[in-house]
Amino acid sequence: MAVLISGIAELTTHDAERPVLADAALVVDGGHVVWVGERAGAPAADEEVDVAGRAVVPGFVDSHSHLVFAGDRAPEFAARMAGTPYAAGGIRTTVAATRAATDEQLTAHVARLVQEMLRQGTTTFETKSGYGLTVRDEARSLAVARQFTDETTFLGAHVVPVEYADDPGGYVDLVTGPMLEAAAPHARWVDAFCESGAFDVDQARAVLHAGEGAGLQGRLHASQLGPGPGVLLAAELGLAAVDHCTYLTDADVTALADSGTVATLLPGVEFSTRQPYPDARRLLDAGVTVALASDCNPGSSYTSSVPFCVALAVREMGMTPTEAVRAATLGGARALRRDDVGRLTVGARADLAVLDAPSAVHLAYRPGVPLVTATWVAGRPV
Amino acid sequence: MAVLISGIAELTTHDAERPVLADAALVVDGGHVVWVGERAGAPAADEEVDVAGRAVVPGFVDSHSHLVFAGDRAPEFAARMAGTPYAAGGIRTTVAATRAATDEQLTAHVARLVQEMLRQGTTTFETKSGYGLTVRDEARSLAVARQFTDETTFLGAHVVPVEYADDPGGYVDLVTGPMLEAAAPHARWVDAFCESGAFDVDQARAVLHAGEGAGLQGRLHASQLGPGPGVLLAAELGLAAVDHCTYLTDADVTALADSGTVATLLPGVEFSTRQPYPDARRLLDAGVTVALASDCNPGSSYTSSVPFCVALAVREMGMTPTEAVRAATLGGARALRRDDVGRLTVGARADLAVLDAPSAVHLAYRPGVPLVTATWVAGRPV
Ligand SMILES: [Zn+2]
Ligand SMILES: [Zn+2]
Repeated sequence: MAVLISGIAELTTHDAERPVLADAALVVDGGHVVWVGERAGAPAADEEVDVAGRAVVPGFVDSHSHLVFAGDRAPEFAARMAGTPYAAGGIRTTVAATRAATDEQLTAHVARLVQEMLRQGTTTFETKSGYGLTVRDEARSLAVARQFTDETTFLGAHVVPVEYADDPGGYVDLVTGPMLEAAAPHARWVDAFCESGAFDVDQARAVLHAGEGAGLQGRLHASQLGPGPGVLLAAELGLAAVDHCTYLTDADVTALADSGTVATLLPGVEFSTRQPYPDARRLLDAGVTVALASDCNPGSSYTSSVPFCVALAVREMGMTPTEAVRAATLGGARALRRDDVGRLTVGARADLAVLDAPSAVHLAYRPGVPLVTATWVAGRPV
Repeated sequence: MAVLISGIAELTTHDAERPVLADAALVVDGGHVVWVGERAGAPAADEEVDVAGRAVVPGFVDSHSHLVFAGDRAPEFAARMAGTPYAAGGIRTTVAATRAATDEQLTAHVARLVQEMLRQGTTTFETKSGYGLTVRDEARSLAVARQFTDETTFLGAHVVPVEYADDPGGYVDLVTGPMLEAAAPHARWVDAFCESGAFDVDQARAVLHAGEGAGLQGRLHASQLGPGPGVLLAAELGLAAVDHCTYLTDADVTALADSGTVATLLPGVEFSTRQPYPDARRLLDAGVTVALASDCNPGSSYTSSVPFCVALAVREMGMTPTEAVRAATLGGARALRRDDVGRLTVGARADLAVLDAPSAVHLAYRPGVPLVTATWVAGRPV
């Protein structure tokens, strides 16, 4: 059944020729976009939905989140805001709670966050393991995640768990061996936290290499807390994306531009840890593809709001509103090597967000306001 | 009819002895709170609403907004974010559009913003004229506002309109004369924008003095763009509040502490204009009462989200989450000289926000996420 969405004051398509249309309409059928253009030229359809002068954007593609966890770290957050420095060891609190949770508890928690994301316009999201850190807990974390998304990432190499504190090499052997074997059936991607205090570049390379051998594609956490070798590794390996990119050398920027690896920026982290923001302007000016994602996780960025990340990207990272919206949709899709989402062109999946605003600029102009009034997935409002 | 609200994981009351209760309940009747305490001790009621482990806070008291206007300034915002400096003259764009709008258009626009505020937990709000700047347009702006709130403020002295550019003294005579006379029946408060480029301290004093003569109580915009004499004037006159307070001298801080005049901080402005944030910590440490408000307006802060302002206050202004929530509730009430709102103690109006979170810390811990799941006004969900 063909549905005509009319009355679109501003439609962001990301079509190469006409990325934004005014007074537009869209026809969706069979879950996909079948026609896009000016309202005046729209074909007949079985049904019409008039959005009454609102803006429509592609559903957000949140290419980086950590939704499978248990426990609350609000007290740690409050302490940090009162001046206690951020301790990476905080991850271990979540690991203990996640291991203790039942599958049902983990599933219910993810379901709640996914609903929250949908209400805020996110229609595709990636999510990771990384709070289990045992063979059993990493595998079940991914099995839980798989109920909600195909974009699941094995992040056994998130942090070395306490029981391996004296034997990080042994932990890498576990990650690249039995843990990977148990995780791979539930995952599309493999990832590692390549940062001083977590995994070094050789360990990250070993994890990515083993993951590739098990049929997983690589992505990487790097340069969140300081400059490091992870970005060059990601570019060298031609990974889909390298995420955080808060501290980059000129060589990193050049390598990203040359390799086409997407730089995924996660400003919710800098907001919630009072760290300096990454410089999106520098990346865009160098021709790097930038994605914007929530990094939704209980330690360093417990926001699920891509609109909030768009507002931060404009305030703090030198992006224009248009660039930020593009990074949160098309950029996220590129970071996941998806060309069926992140755009509203003929053939794309009909995933979209209707904004209670005449233009997508309002996502940055009206920070914090829940502007998404309807989210459509595969041609239907959800 | 008495309604018992049970299952409150954390209840912020602002009671002097027990400002926050765990595992709490609340009984409301006749629009007011009639009982507060631990769930175990709750009396019987006619009806019970179980909020299932959520946190409850007093409804937000947004003591500073400019909702009565027409027109869109998203392009100006986008230009500013791309590096064009903020021009105060931008207000004049809104003045032209507001004068051209019908009463019905203005009313519909305010209604939309008020609904948006309610959905985000704001149960009391102040709003101002100031985009009319003629006798007729200021009076009708306030008449429109009065349909939605008793906390209306006459702000004829917002900016000198173009037609008085060569005669600012003549404009002050208009504001303190016929404009005030037409506005006063619709207003509780009188305000002026005491800032270099707007009104000087003598003009502000004249406006406040005339307003007082017409039965209005004074409040003031001051020290937004640089240090100025407005804060000392507010303290000298014992005004309820002085708003912005971004640039304060030590003498300003001391005068605020001594006078009891509330310092209302508006971090949405600094977010949307890339100005430095006010130092809430300095004010709190000096014993000044701080309020947090949205300043919702189309030029410098088009957010209606008090939760967003809470998150900014914690990230950027040195407030703890508890202090920020207090400033956005009790602080706002003090800035409006209200003791019936901003608290959830026996006798207070039963205005509250139910959060999809176990504690109010989540308002800062989960920035941008629409956490308010229900807003109650005078004992009923709206
Ligand atoms: Zn991450
Ligand atoms: Zn104002």
